[in-house]
Parts: sequence; structure tokens; C-alpha cells
Amino acid sequence: MTREDCAALDAADPLAHCRAHFLLPDGVIYLDGNSLGPLPREVPGRLDEIVRTQWGRDLISSWNTHDWIGAPLRVGGKIARLVGAAVNEVLAADTVSINIFKLICAALAMRPGRRVIVSESGNFPTDLYMMQGLRGLIPDIELRIVARDEVTAALDDTVALLLLSHVHYKTSERWNMTELTHAAHAVGALTLWDLSHSTGAVRLALNAAGADFAVGCGYKFLNGGPGAPGFLFVAARHQGEVQNPLSGWLGHAAPFDFKDEYQPAPGLRRMMCSSPSIIALGTLEAALQAWQDIDPTAIEHKSGRLGDVFIATVEEACAGYGLTLAVPREASRRGAHVAFAHQDGYRIMQALISRGVIGDFRAPDLLRFGLAPLTTRFVDAFDAAWVLAYILGNRTYDQPQFAVRALVT
Amino acid sequence: MTREDCAALDAADPLAHCRAHFLLPDGVIYLDGNSLGPLPREVPGRLDEIVRTQWGRDLISSWNTHDWIGAPLRVGGKIARLVGAAVNEVLAADTVSINIFKLICAALAMRPGRRVIVSESGNFPTDLYMMQGLRGLIPDIELRIVARDEVTAALDDTVALLLLSHVHYKTSERWNMTELTHAAHAVGALTLWDLSHSTGAVRLALNAAGADFAVGCGYKFLNGGPGAPGFLFVAARHQGEVQNPLSGWLGHAAPFDFKDEYQPAPGLRRMMCSSPSIIALGTLEAALQAWQDIDPTAIEHKSGRLGDVFIATVEEACAGYGLTLAVPREASRRGAHVAFAHQDGYRIMQALISRGVIGDFRAPDLLRFGLAPLTTRFVDAFDAAWVLAYILGNRTYDQPQFAVRALVT
Repeated sequence: MTREDCAALDAADPLAHCRAHFLLPDGVIYLDGNSLGPLPREVPGRLDEIVRTQWGRDLISSWNTHDWIGAPLRVGGKIARLVGAAVNEVLAADTVSINIFKLICAALAMRPGRRVIVSESGNFPTDLYMMQGLRGLIPDIELRIVARDEVTAALDDTVALLLLSHVHYKTSERWNMTELTHAAHAVGALTLWDLSHSTGAVRLALNAAGADFAVGCGYKFLNGGPGAPGFLFVAARHQGEVQNPLSGWLGHAAPFDFKDEYQPAPGLRRMMCSSPSIIALGTLEAALQAWQDIDPTAIEHKSGRLGDVFIATVEEACAGYGLTLAVPREASRRGAHVAFAHQDGYRIMQALISRGVIGDFRAPDLLRFGLAPLTTRFVDAFDAAWVLAYILGNRTYDQPQFAVRALVT
Repeated sequence: MTREDCAALDAADPLAHCRAHFLLPDGVIYLDGNSLGPLPREVPGRLDEIVRTQWGRDLISSWNTHDWIGAPLRVGGKIARLVGAAVNEVLAADTVSINIFKLICAALAMRPGRRVIVSESGNFPTDLYMMQGLRGLIPDIELRIVARDEVTAALDDTVALLLLSHVHYKTSERWNMTELTHAAHAVGALTLWDLSHSTGAVRLALNAAGADFAVGCGYKFLNGGPGAPGFLFVAARHQGEVQNPLSGWLGHAAPFDFKDEYQPAPGLRRMMCSSPSIIALGTLEAALQAWQDIDPTAIEHKSGRLGDVFIATVEEACAGYGLTLAVPREASRRGAHVAFAHQDGYRIMQALISRGVIGDFRAPDLLRFGLAPLTTRFVDAFDAAWVLAYILGNRTYDQPQFAVRALVT
């Protein structure tokens, strides 16, 4: 694999034009869009319009005239196609963690008598932590947290919910959503898929897989800005039955009647809680503009090929330098990030960042690289691999400034 | 009371300069800052810096270099003085409803064996709805929702929590926080004050009153933008004991260790859940600039005098037109909004808005006017009263276009 081969792949890439939608700093190869997506070109102008015209000039009337009230469902509808759902099945609201909480509680209410939730040890911590918090409210729930290869065997007729991250935040391993959903349904359990590292990274087909619930993140591959609102999916067949434990007034059937008794709205709006940040939702909506005409199959293909090229180039350029591939080799079993383990991983990542290759480090030893299909070029993957080789070959990471550990990397 | 009297009050007003901090549209008297505060002049520039420089240029490193990670406590600290709390007792996070949920659960855990929550019928709906949602998780809780004058009598040694809105969203009635807190403590109960209609409206003294918990709103008098983050207060003495049921990863003692088991952070950070919207928090932080040097006593005084002037002028100008004052006459028992009842209230408010006086309508019959101490002039209160008199005297609200009910008013 030569740089010319990569340039040829870029020239033939049907998503190559997407990079122009983003304001990327010069001199940087940004491989951390799986943690914080870069700034879409559309955002600053849209924010100025929301702030100066809608908020500043039209004030309170904007809830109607600029349809602020409809924003959570409208923005959710724009995400739906990317996750294989119908437009009325996705709501942009709150955060991943809070949406997980809502849907765990909803699942327990739909499976009375069952008190077991199954998940994977080493799942993204917030998924596990939200279950643990619930233990303080519902003492008799059982959290059956097992190793990845024991998940299927952990399913039995006491299980209310199977909660899995579709793509693992560290190892990039991808579950077969259809198989696991069928396995859960076979014992009468529901499924909740965390799509934080999948949405905008790989092809998703929630309805084709028969999924019940899902949540996802707005600030990773979707590029909705730091701490962007999350989203949730409730399959249409469950929307009449699902209950929201965080039953705030905007989920009420008639919020502006200001009644003392809660009555859930018909449809997905009942999963809302409180007034959403219109500025944050508007930023996410502007970011979704870049995804408007993108074919999910092209996303899947680009992510897979980028990962293949990066793995091949690193393994060639860095042979003998102590790196170990920490993600599946087959693209169909991976998400859109690639990780390598190295005992000096933290310092190596700091040295990479100092040379303009921005990935991140995940303890204890992982160098993680997000290969975002809209913004990463094949030549970027190639160049990043060779910067890594330079750093490893010359041990530049042995300099003292790379040893200081910051809170967030 | 003449317009000249009002102009003289404005000339002597120590807060008169604050209005220059805001971008208010021409030709409008905006009396709905209790629903959505107007746009602070500081916001557009700050947002541009957050978006283009912090997000766009500095990308993921901004969590450290621009202290995004510290934003919830930093912004909370800037609210603390306005509510009579210490800087390490206030956290800007999530929403009012979600913070209510956290603190109800926290209170129940701190009062094992007690399962009663007392609140007021007709309280702001979300306060009641969040309790009702909890009933689905903890079936044995008792919601003792009683009339305002029965609240004190409803307190007994089965009560875990007294949850009240300090200023009522409709009637503007203000609880004596010290008295009610003492009454709750006398039976061993905790208190949770909803300060949504109080913060930035009246003088608040949470610690002087001995309050345990509080929540408040960022988008009303604080002017933090549509759907701005809310805040919560936990008295320092409870911070070692309080548990967050929404135990997301940013409330963890060491979130970047990515452990499977939740360990709460020491101090108030444990009340966080997930990554906050930095854009929404940054907007709120920019809005707080206008409050930086404001004496809470001046807020209390200005709100009270504005309400007195507005009530007196309406009662003089609109005598015989069927209006009934629907808030306490004594300023010390009111918040910063004034309401009048009228059987044709909805159409009258539409007619007012069409003439540039923007208040809001609350079913069944209330005309509600927010008199925000930083932006409302005494002449605005005077002029609004006389526009109301014109509309009532000439029955201009009888025109058909004012009869159409929008979702949000």
C-alpha cells in the first residue's frame, strides 16, 4: 500500500466531497471524531440565526413560529434513516445516559415479574453505571454482567432486557444485532442497543433486526457539538405501551393545560421530559445537514476500507515496534475506530498529538483512532500510520513532556 | 402615578444600566422574561468563540484547555450568590425536571423508612409529574398533594421530603422559605425548593433558611437561552451522603479510569450524569455576566417596586373593565411576575401581543406579566398598563384573529 494507492482511493471515494462540509484546522489529522466530531461548516451561520433572529428578535413566539416545540421529533426524524428506523421512531432528547435510564425502566415495566438485566462486562461505563443507579430505587433487580462470549448463555426467561453497545468503545467489536435481538426475543426479553459508536460509523438497521429500543450519541460521528443532545429509538409497535419514568411536562398529552395529573402524550413525544436546549438541538440539526443525502451503505463501505488501510499501513510501517492490533481484523466485525495496544500507549499518543495526529488514549494501553467516514481521507490514514512509525522508530515519545497525564485525552 | 413619576423612578434606579446588557427588539415591551429571558449582548460573541475556536480549532483538547470539564461547577458557582449559597453548593446540569428527580430520590434514600412526599396542588406540573413518574419505580411512596394552606399540617414524621415552588408560576405567591424549612426539619423531613420563578427575581437565601436541596431554571430570569441547562443546590452538609440515582459516568470519582463499578465523586460533582452541552452551558455562562455585580437586595427591591407600579397603574387605568388581581398585593409575598384574571384573558393577551406588549396567558383566565428587574423599566410597566386599558376600553380583543389558540402563548 503506497500513498499513491491511497490518493487513488480518495479520488474514487463517493464520500470524498463530504469533507468540504467541515471546518477542519490546518496541519491536523483529526482521528478523534469518535469522541468529538469536528465543526460542520453549516453550524456557525445556523447558530447565529437561532440566537439573533429566533431568540433575540422573535423571543417567546419562536416556540411556535420557528417550531422549537417540534424540534426533538424533527431532529430525531433526520437521524432515523441513519439507524434504520422510521421518522416517527426517533426522538432527539436529553443525553445517552438519561435515555438509557428511561428505556431500562420502560423495559422493566413491560416485563412485569422479570427483574434481570443482561449486559457485557467492560461495556461503556455509563451503561453499567445507569443500571447500578437504578439498583438504589428497585432493590430486587439483578444485573447479570457477563463476559462477551457468555452473553447469549446468560439469556433466560427471567431476563427483562438485554442492553448492549452495538460497537464497543474500546475494542470496536460489533455485535450482530439481528442474532442477539432474536436470541433475546426467544426468551421473551427486550433489547436496548447503545449506538453511540455506531451511528454515522456503520450501516444500522434497527427495524430489520427487530430491535425494541436504542439510544445514541449526537457528538461523536454525527458531529453535533460538544455534549450534543442524545437520541432514543422506540419501535413503533411499543409506542402505545412504553412508559417514561422521567415523566416531565413536555411528555404530557397536553402540557399547556397545566393539569396536576400526568397523562402521557400519544406516540414518541411521551419520552420527552423537559424543555430541550434549542441552541444545542439546533446545532445538532445543522450538523445533520452533512448526512442528508448519504447512503448508509457508503458509510459502511468507507469505514471498513479506511480501517483496512490503516491497519495494513500501521502493521507494515510499525512492524517490530511492539504494537498489537486490538480490534477485529474483519471490517464487518468492527466499527469505524481502530485501536492498537502498546505498553507506552499514553506517551505515544501525546507524541502523536504534538505532531498533529489527534487520536485518543484509553487506559491501560490503547491507542484509539477514529476513522470518520465523512472527514477522514485514505491519505490521512496512511500519513497517520507513518507518523506513528516515526515516533516509535525514533522513540520520540520518551521525552519527559509526554509523560504528564491530563484528565481528558 | 404619572409617566413622569415612572421616568423619575427609572432615573433613580441603580439597576437601570443593566438593560444595556441585552439585545431587545425595537417597538416591544417584553414582559415574558419569566418564560424566556431576552438575549444578552454578551452571548453571540461568546458562542462564536466557543464554536469556532474551542470546538472548531482546538477540538477534543478543549475539555482540558478551555476547561469544558469544569463548566458545570464553574457555571453553578456563578449562580450561587444569587440563591444565597456557597460556590461549591451549586451545579449547572441537565434540566429542572431531571434535577428534581435526582433530589427526590436522594431525599428518599436519606430518610429510610419514610415514604411520603408533601407538595402543593397546583404546583408547577413538572414538579408533580416527576413525583408521579417515580411511583412507577417505587410503588410504596405516598404523594401527599394538598392545598397551599394545608401544607404545614401535612407534615408529620412519615414525611421524607417537602417539595415546594418558592414562587408560584401562576399566582406569584412566595413561600417563607425559612418558616417552611423549619417546619419540615421539625418533623425530620428534608426540603427541596424549586426556584424556577425566584432566581434572578427576588432575594434568595438558601443557606440562611437552612434549606437542604434546591433546583432552578436557566432560561427564565437568568436569560440563559431557550431550554438552557438547569441547576441544582445541595447544602454542603449533605454532600458526603447524597446519592444520585442517575449515576452517569461524569459523576464518577474517576470517569477516565473506565471502571465497571460506579464510585461517586467526592462533593457535588456526583450529581452530574453525562457530558453537558458545552454550547448551552457556555450560553448560560455568558448570560450570567449581566448578573456579576448585582446586589440581590437591589433585585428584590426593583421587582417589588415594578410590581407595585404595574398593579397600581392597571387598577387605575383599567378600573371597571373586569380585571381581578390574581397575585398578592404585598411585594414581599410576591415574585417578579404579576397576573390579572379576566374571562377573555386569552384574546386580550393576543391583542396585547399584536400591539407589542408581550406577556403570556395561563389557562383558564390569567394574563401574566413578568417584570424582570434587569430589563424592565418603570415606564415599560406604565405603558403596558395603558395599552391594556386601551384594548379593554375599546374591546379591540373582540376581533376574530385574537381567538385562535396557539400551542404555546
